[in-house]
Amino acid sequence: MRIGIAGITGRVGRLLVEEVQAAGATLSGGTTRKPEAASGLPQGVPLFKDMAELAANSDVVIDFTHADTVIPNAQALAAAGTAWVLGTTGLSAEQQSAVNKAAEKIAVVHAANYSPGVTLVQRLAQMMARVLPADSYDAEIVEMHHRQKVDAPSGTALAIGEAVAQGRGVKLADVRESGRDGHTGPRKEGAIGFAALRGGQIVGEHEVLFTSADEQIVLGHRAFDRRIFATGAVRAAKWVKGHKPGLYSMEDVLGLPPL
Amino acid sequence: MRIGIAGITGRVGRLLVEEVQAAGATLSGGTTRKPEAASGLPQGVPLFKDMAELAANSDVVIDFTHADTVIPNAQALAAAGTAWVLGTTGLSAEQQSAVNKAAEKIAVVHAANYSPGVTLVQRLAQMMARVLPADSYDAEIVEMHHRQKVDAPSGTALAIGEAVAQGRGVKLADVRESGRDGHTGPRKEGAIGFAALRGGQIVGEHEVLFTSADEQIVLGHRAFDRRIFATGAVRAAKWVKGHKPGLYSMEDVLGLPPL
Amino acid sequence: MRIGIAGITGRVGRLLVEEVQAAGATLSGGTTRKPEAASGLPQGVPLFKDMAELAANSDVVIDFTHADTVIPNAQALAAAGTAWVLGTTGLSAEQQSAVNKAAEKIAVVHAANYSPGVTLVQRLAQMMARVLPADSYDAEIVEMHHRQKVDAPSGTALAIGEAVAQGRGVKLADVRESGRDGHTGPRKEGAIGFAALRGGQIVGEHEVLFTSADEQIVLGHRAFDRRIFATGAVRAAKWVKGHKPGLYSMEDVLGLPPL
Amino acid sequence: MRIGIAGITGRVGRLLVEEVQAAGATLSGGTTRKPEAASGLPQGVPLFKDMAELAANSDVVIDFTHADTVIPNAQALAAAGTAWVLGTTGLSAEQQSAVNKAAEKIAVVHAANYSPGVTLVQRLAQMMARVLPADSYDAEIVEMHHRQKVDAPSGTALAIGEAVAQGRGVKLADVRESGRDGHTGPRKEGAIGFAALRGGQIVGEHEVLFTSADEQIVLGHRAFDRRIFATGAVRAAKWVKGHKPGLYSMEDVLGLPPL
Repeated sequence: MRIGIAGITGRVGRLLVEEVQAAGATLSGGTTRKPEAASGLPQGVPLFKDMAELAANSDVVIDFTHADTVIPNAQALAAAGTAWVLGTTGLSAEQQSAVNKAAEKIAVVHAANYSPGVTLVQRLAQMMARVLPADSYDAEIVEMHHRQKVDAPSGTALAIGEAVAQGRGVKLADVRESGRDGHTGPRKEGAIGFAALRGGQIVGEHEVLFTSADEQIVLGHRAFDRRIFATGAVRAAKWVKGHKPGLYSMEDVLGLPPL
Repeated sequence: MRIGIAGITGRVGRLLVEEVQAAGATLSGGTTRKPEAASGLPQGVPLFKDMAELAANSDVVIDFTHADTVIPNAQALAAAGTAWVLGTTGLSAEQQSAVNKAAEKIAVVHAANYSPGVTLVQRLAQMMARVLPADSYDAEIVEMHHRQKVDAPSGTALAIGEAVAQGRGVKLADVRESGRDGHTGPRKEGAIGFAALRGGQIVGEHEVLFTSADEQIVLGHRAFDRRIFATGAVRAAKWVKGHKPGLYSMEDVLGLPPL
Repeated sequence: MRIGIAGITGRVGRLLVEEVQAAGATLSGGTTRKPEAASGLPQGVPLFKDMAELAANSDVVIDFTHADTVIPNAQALAAAGTAWVLGTTGLSAEQQSAVNKAAEKIAVVHAANYSPGVTLVQRLAQMMARVLPADSYDAEIVEMHHRQKVDAPSGTALAIGEAVAQGRGVKLADVRESGRDGHTGPRKEGAIGFAALRGGQIVGEHEVLFTSADEQIVLGHRAFDRRIFATGAVRAAKWVKGHKPGLYSMEDVLGLPPL
Repeated sequence: MRIGIAGITGRVGRLLVEEVQAAGATLSGGTTRKPEAASGLPQGVPLFKDMAELAANSDVVIDFTHADTVIPNAQALAAAGTAWVLGTTGLSAEQQSAVNKAAEKIAVVHAANYSPGVTLVQRLAQMMARVLPADSYDAEIVEMHHRQKVDAPSGTALAIGEAVAQGRGVKLADVRESGRDGHTGPRKEGAIGFAALRGGQIVGEHEVLFTSADEQIVLGHRAFDRRIFATGAVRAAKWVKGHKPGLYSMEDVLGLPPL
């Protein structure tokens, strides 16, 4: 199995190189705008300026580059019949449409977060919210990140909150309680609460708690190393090879049952 | 909706009375061998010596009594067409067979643990074990109970361990590591570890951790009050009314999707 | 050892009765404004309308009643030479002055929170803050309480925050960050952060975290039962007997070394 | 302030170099048996074969090398009047005696663990054990380490257990309960329990819990990075300069009050 890497000389690209090798797959090469920045990459790895060339040499291409390369990449990969593991977010409608069109010809995995753990936590949180009624079980989400983080709650905390809201058939915006401080009044029935801690160099920790008068169920995730996103993307690449054309999610890769 | 309670004058029976009333259902009465022990029960609640009489007055009977009453109760409830929420464990083959036979005529929920949280944790642990491969994610289960508990690990910890083993398609007995002490050697790949803490009057806390080099996913449960078993049984009673004959689990009551 | 209880027919008074008996001390009686509300108290326990009478019969009186009884109680106990365990808070300057004057004649323990654990956590948090420099270790405090609680952070969380601020020689008001939500900017060096969770019927949980790039130290407290305040007050009563006149804290009762 | 490093070309030596530079101190050089292994060290850092030469150039030397270099190092540092931060453990009686003798002439910090957090946790655990009586508060210690670890409980867990035992005035060996599995009987009053989890690449996590019927106090430590030992040693080096001759502990460096 031949895996190619878009943006191979970048920080994420280098992690992907290591994970492809750790997985025992063949590293078929990578694209880069800066071939002079290749020091430290394995000897002899082919570097391309053009996605078409990389696609021709690969069974799957992993792509965590920028939104503005999505349209040409989609065309090149669809033309070559090469599967695509795409981690780029913030796509415009036109860019998303190019992805969808490519997915008619090739298998595409597209996810915002390739951590198996985070994907699993979101799905499980949705199931928990379905099973534990909002009038008895209060849902709270607490996250902790490094001291440099400038916003709260984290995107992943909000995504878990969305999953809980979906499980309960409500809109998160209607039930969100974040940043409690001062006179808050009693907790509203059905609220989904958020709290944010900051400190040190914590990569990311999330917990969702469902608390009734009689019991508490807690689901938590800790990322020790940003490498987990590369590990998950390579897992997706191994999974996607041999699947028929279509648009897949990380939930599909993990084999999570439909709700 | 009329709910009857087997063993209404016992400790569990009294919790069930309170939960039936809190749920807004009609308390149709209860069986007891000690009608003189009824003080503290609601005024005018009908007491019966015989299950047939209670069954005739009830849509559902909740039964947490002893294994040796299972056979006559099965016959009486099937004859009356009254649904049965059964929490008795440790049934003989003959007793289990009586339950199965009743389930041809009436809807029966049978579970070892009616806590919604514990039921959910077991199912989710099984899903986690399927999705997180044993060669990367080490599974450990830690529990804490009150200082009087005489065995370890707890039955619920072992049930969670069974769920993890099922999710991985292995036998728990083949991979169990409990009570690490002294020179243990490195952790075996695929092991399921158990650790037991004891202290104070902790009702029951359980955690299952899946830890890889890069991330950790934790699922935990804390029981604050033994009342949760009564709450869950009444939830099962409300669910079972109107279901067709058959043998149901607490997973069915919670609407958990099949794996 | 004879212990008397002010306000013996109230909710706290009844817990104190149980704890005095559990500690093997003699219950010398109690004051009450409602002698008709004595049902459930031990048979024959003397009830008084007047603190002077209770004081004359007791070695120590435990008093969790209202601020407006503090002045007459102080006078009665000082006159009788009976030690005083006082849990009343929110005293006016005049009331506090009456306490101080009584403490010239009798031993007085005065504390806002008689839980040994909470007292200990505050002192230890202060020590941690001294030893772990603010430019490397970020301090965060997270608390969880029942869904009825109307304000955030809890008084105990703020008291822990004060202890951290004292340990660092800063004013809490100058470094407090609570209720993070939205664009917060990076964490300020030396900040003390607060986060509040709400759910179920949690009596009270607090955690203070000190997180550097390389390590994290966490100190936590969970109250399972409000009874802990009565247990601690009886511990204070046993300790105070035999101490010379003066004003003592719960730290003194626990024998915590001076900082 | 000039800091020298014994064993500068080793793994720990290189971390120490980084931490000395991060602390803004002058790196005065290091000893090494392998001057050819210096690649990656800062340009121009003086390398010595002999401790006497390094000592002559340094105010303090940090030494995490082997027990068999302790005697010559002690003599060289005492002769030069250079302070010594020593992290070597497993000393023979003769080696320890050489350390003690050096401490008559120079200031020596000697500790088994230079993590400020672990040092603090041990001291605080001792204080907790003094204040929380063993007949009400059950002490349990749980640790988690990477899957390669071959023994249980960890040395740090046992050191925390020793601290709890000292705080209670008992011998750990008399009250230790580890590796609960099977029919254990009820928890013994005054026991100190241990439990060990293994998984992933966890550097080291420890928690000591004191649990009564009514409350629980938990003190925990997580090491994110082994670098913390180097950070702590440099902190000790900065502290020891200017102290008079004597043998000091990491508790002294942190300014922890005597118990």
